[in-house]
Amino acid sequence: MGTPVVVYGDQRSGNCRKVIWALRKAGVDYDWREVDIMAGETRDTDFLLLNQNGKVPIVRLADGRVLCESNAILWYFCESTDWVPEEAFERAQVLQWMFFEQYSHEPYIAVRRFIRQYLDWPNERYDEYQTREAGGHAALKVMTLALEEADFIAGDRMTVADVALYAYTSVAHEGGFDLEAYPRLQSWLARCQPHLPQAG
Amino acid sequence: MGTPVVVYGDQRSGNCRKVIWALRKAGVDYDWREVDIMAGETRDTDFLLLNQNGKVPIVRLADGRVLCESNAILWYFCESTDWVPEEAFERAQVLQWMFFEQYSHEPYIAVRRFIRQYLDWPNERYDEYQTREAGGHAALKVMTLALEEADFIAGDRMTVADVALYAYTSVAHEGGFDLEAYPRLQSWLARCQPHLPQAG
Repeated sequence: MGTPVVVYGDQRSGNCRKVIWALRKAGVDYDWREVDIMAGETRDTDFLLLNQNGKVPIVRLADGRVLCESNAILWYFCESTDWVPEEAFERAQVLQWMFFEQYSHEPYIAVRRFIRQYLDWPNERYDEYQTREAGGHAALKVMTLALEEADFIAGDRMTVADVALYAYTSVAHEGGFDLEAYPRLQSWLARCQPHLPQAG
Repeated sequence: MGTPVVVYGDQRSGNCRKVIWALRKAGVDYDWREVDIMAGETRDTDFLLLNQNGKVPIVRLADGRVLCESNAILWYFCESTDWVPEEAFERAQVLQWMFFEQYSHEPYIAVRRFIRQYLDWPNERYDEYQTREAGGHAALKVMTLALEEADFIAGDRMTVADVALYAYTSVAHEGGFDLEAYPRLQSWLARCQPHLPQAG
């Protein structure tokens, strides 16, 4: 059936897990190429030819076209599924939460997890670890308030915005964010979980 | 003709300028409500009722619905214009660059401008100003490489991705990034400029 979609990713990365869920949801077969961030592989010449920005995940389609940025990849593969609404304003709300995720959530919750789990909490990044705590709690609080209004982050059903935010919220404790203080987020995670397609 | 769209924004903010261009492009009338970030108005109770995340811009539609995040607003108003492609992969490429803008460009180029222009370069943020220099140059370099391939950031015509990146690239010097070193970006800015609708 020709060359399948190839995903370049790091299995531990929440941004890369988004892509796996998207491809399973869309029913697209793919090959996985593990890229070791810690070994500097995202800075290798071959990798930079795919993404000059030096970040995973990347997908290469069967025809050779390349797409970067986890949330753009989520959108691409799921736009024709029920994870992306059809109505224009609802679609924009989903994008609102995906931009929130990349600007106001990931730089705190995922970066602290990276410092703690990948780098094993080095002294020289301890200050940064501390300064990224308040922003993470602010993001979790904003999510909690949205989830007082509806069962999912952008309304009454699961969308790619939930997938984007699930990726790092579900492992927030690995960055030192205790979700015991956020029961509404815990029930939202439990509500999302059965929607995420498992390996078949 | 009923209540028009209301934009809550700060005239000096690039993220807010994106919204003005979007509304002009879409031919939508709006009222502007100036929100003074420096006076703490994004932290006022009334403002937080609109956006718990405490950030401008926000738009309130005539029917009362509210949308946040500059790039989601850009997408909403321009999805039916020629600034958003119709083909699915091209659309995803546009989103790729908009997520790049929020994650890899704005936190360096806009934040340094904020520290220098809004805060007047206080001593306590000088280290942060310095540490955000390299990321800004990395983003400008990635854009330069993309613009070696095509006239606009996501292909051969102007899209909302160009608008998103124009907002802070066009004022990068105010954050200490000299675009003399990036002639390709200077010609791209000049190419974008006539596409941006002026006050009519």
